[in-house]
Amino acid sequence: MDEFQLIHRFFSPLSPRKRGSVRLGVGDDGAVLSPPPGCDLVMATDTVLAGVHFPKDCPPRSIAHRALAVNLSDLAAMAADPLWYTLALSLPSASARWLSAFSKGLELLSGEAGIALVGGDTVCGPLAVTITVVGSVPRGRAVTRRGGRVGDWICVTGPLGRAAAGLSAWQRGQRRGAALVPFLYPHPALEWIPLLRDFAHSALDVSDGLIQDLCHLLEPRSLGAEIDLECLDCEPRDLDGLVQALSGGDDYVLCFTVSPRRWEPLVRRARARHLDCRIIGRIVPGSGIRYRGALADRVRHARIRGYDHFQRPLPRRPHA
Amino acid sequence: MDEFQLIHRFFSPLSPRKRGSVRLGVGDDGAVLSPPPGCDLVMATDTVLAGVHFPKDCPPRSIAHRALAVNLSDLAAMAADPLWYTLALSLPSASARWLSAFSKGLELLSGEAGIALVGGDTVCGPLAVTITVVGSVPRGRAVTRRGGRVGDWICVTGPLGRAAAGLSAWQRGQRRGAALVPFLYPHPALEWIPLLRDFAHSALDVSDGLIQDLCHLLEPRSLGAEIDLECLDCEPRDLDGLVQALSGGDDYVLCFTVSPRRWEPLVRRARARHLDCRIIGRIVPGSGIRYRGALADRVRHARIRGYDHFQRPLPRRPHA
Repeated sequence: MDEFQLIHRFFSPLSPRKRGSVRLGVGDDGAVLSPPPGCDLVMATDTVLAGVHFPKDCPPRSIAHRALAVNLSDLAAMAADPLWYTLALSLPSASARWLSAFSKGLELLSGEAGIALVGGDTVCGPLAVTITVVGSVPRGRAVTRRGGRVGDWICVTGPLGRAAAGLSAWQRGQRRGAALVPFLYPHPALEWIPLLRDFAHSALDVSDGLIQDLCHLLEPRSLGAEIDLECLDCEPRDLDGLVQALSGGDDYVLCFTVSPRRWEPLVRRARARHLDCRIIGRIVPGSGIRYRGALADRVRHARIRGYDHFQRPLPRRPHA
Repeated sequence: MDEFQLIHRFFSPLSPRKRGSVRLGVGDDGAVLSPPPGCDLVMATDTVLAGVHFPKDCPPRSIAHRALAVNLSDLAAMAADPLWYTLALSLPSASARWLSAFSKGLELLSGEAGIALVGGDTVCGPLAVTITVVGSVPRGRAVTRRGGRVGDWICVTGPLGRAAAGLSAWQRGQRRGAALVPFLYPHPALEWIPLLRDFAHSALDVSDGLIQDLCHLLEPRSLGAEIDLECLDCEPRDLDGLVQALSGGDDYVLCFTVSPRRWEPLVRRARARHLDCRIIGRIVPGSGIRYRGALADRVRHARIRGYDHFQRPLPRRPHA
């Protein structure tokens, strides 16, 4: 199987040659695309690397899912509807079995998200996947990290720390069971896109740990936050569970801020769509993060941090 | 220097926070972009990997230049004007000196091409750069690989085999001199974009070797080509020189086809812009590539091939 046969067999079937906004898909020097009228585009890119973002023995379907999910999550955080993606795949050898499972993972999630593969590159090298996504949002309606205001409630769209717990289970040798799912198949919260657009002042997705990510929202605007530990949905409900919820990465829930007076209509709209979210704190003047709740002192001393690629590697990464 | 300081110091300065079509640049979950009205977009992605696409001891400025140039070349081949790009950088360690030279390489070429960095990801791993570019072209005017017709002349926008010769010189230990430039700093033929748009039936860029790339233009449409070896601009003018011109990669000249009756106006427009191109053959019925010229028989027996990542590694790659 040569490079072109590989693309033809496993990736061209995922790419419409011509459908909707795709005028010309995979197979040329570039794809030709028609952006929807009256919209801004949102563009993001993320790499996942074997041994860093996922364990080397991770199932190929999970690797594909993760690579696309982390990018879709960025679109969701900006309230942009997925349109197109490109795939740059570096892999050590061309195994048909591996590629078949990998492309299946892409097919399932891209189908669910309504995003079309429109281009790519395949090179022989260490296992790594870089996906670049483009989405659309009505002009001027993208939700950024910069809109948070003092008094806003800080909300999350799902439980935190589950992916970190799943990874721990994987590292202990567990290979089956529901506990692994949040780590192996993180869910990008695309269903929240219309609600963010209508209600959120600011938003981001939790990829490197809630506290680290939240700081990206607060620091550039010189804001602080108060987090109510009693409101965190975490397991176990002890110090370890809280630390895992506050620092564990890979959850890809959305964290957004909303005006308290808009909370009721938001919850009504969310419930009508069978969606749930919870308030975990609020934006306060000043800087830094304060904790409230029974274990606040002990959490403060745990010196919560997230993942950093070049300075502060935590046990969570690199993966075995 | 942590990951965020690194981005802030070396890459944020390359990204307009808000200018022209960029409503929001680097620093959020995604960039917010306004596509030009009445246009199609062209999107392409390419990875360059140390030891495969460039020697491991290549200067960082050259690596950055190459990573962007190969992608710009894809836009040029589709006749799309550069707009935005994202950068996914995997590097083993965060050396300020290396990053400074690398970002300088990006700055120079992106400034020349008028393309804005709008997002990225930086991970700790083997040295690899994946860039994704988006360009624009008036609606319906993209030039693809699919428009070639029997009787079209096959043209190239520059000499072939110079990059392969430069690489050979590098591999022999040469570290200075003009001969290295075509390999270290390939030129994306952006100046040809308006001419391709107005004259070319089909086009692509020569990245893996003329003959291999030309086949992508011919095979899907069951066309053949006749190449006149006397018309190739190559050095030396012997069998080795011809083989290098026909199979050497990394030149990033454009190969396009044009109707013979449009040749004269094309040349007039090209000359007015101080551009030069040459006819090297023509599209013929049937399949495969025929050679004409004094050394045709010997070239035919040299079994010209290009680079393939998973089946046929040639001495040109992997790089030492």
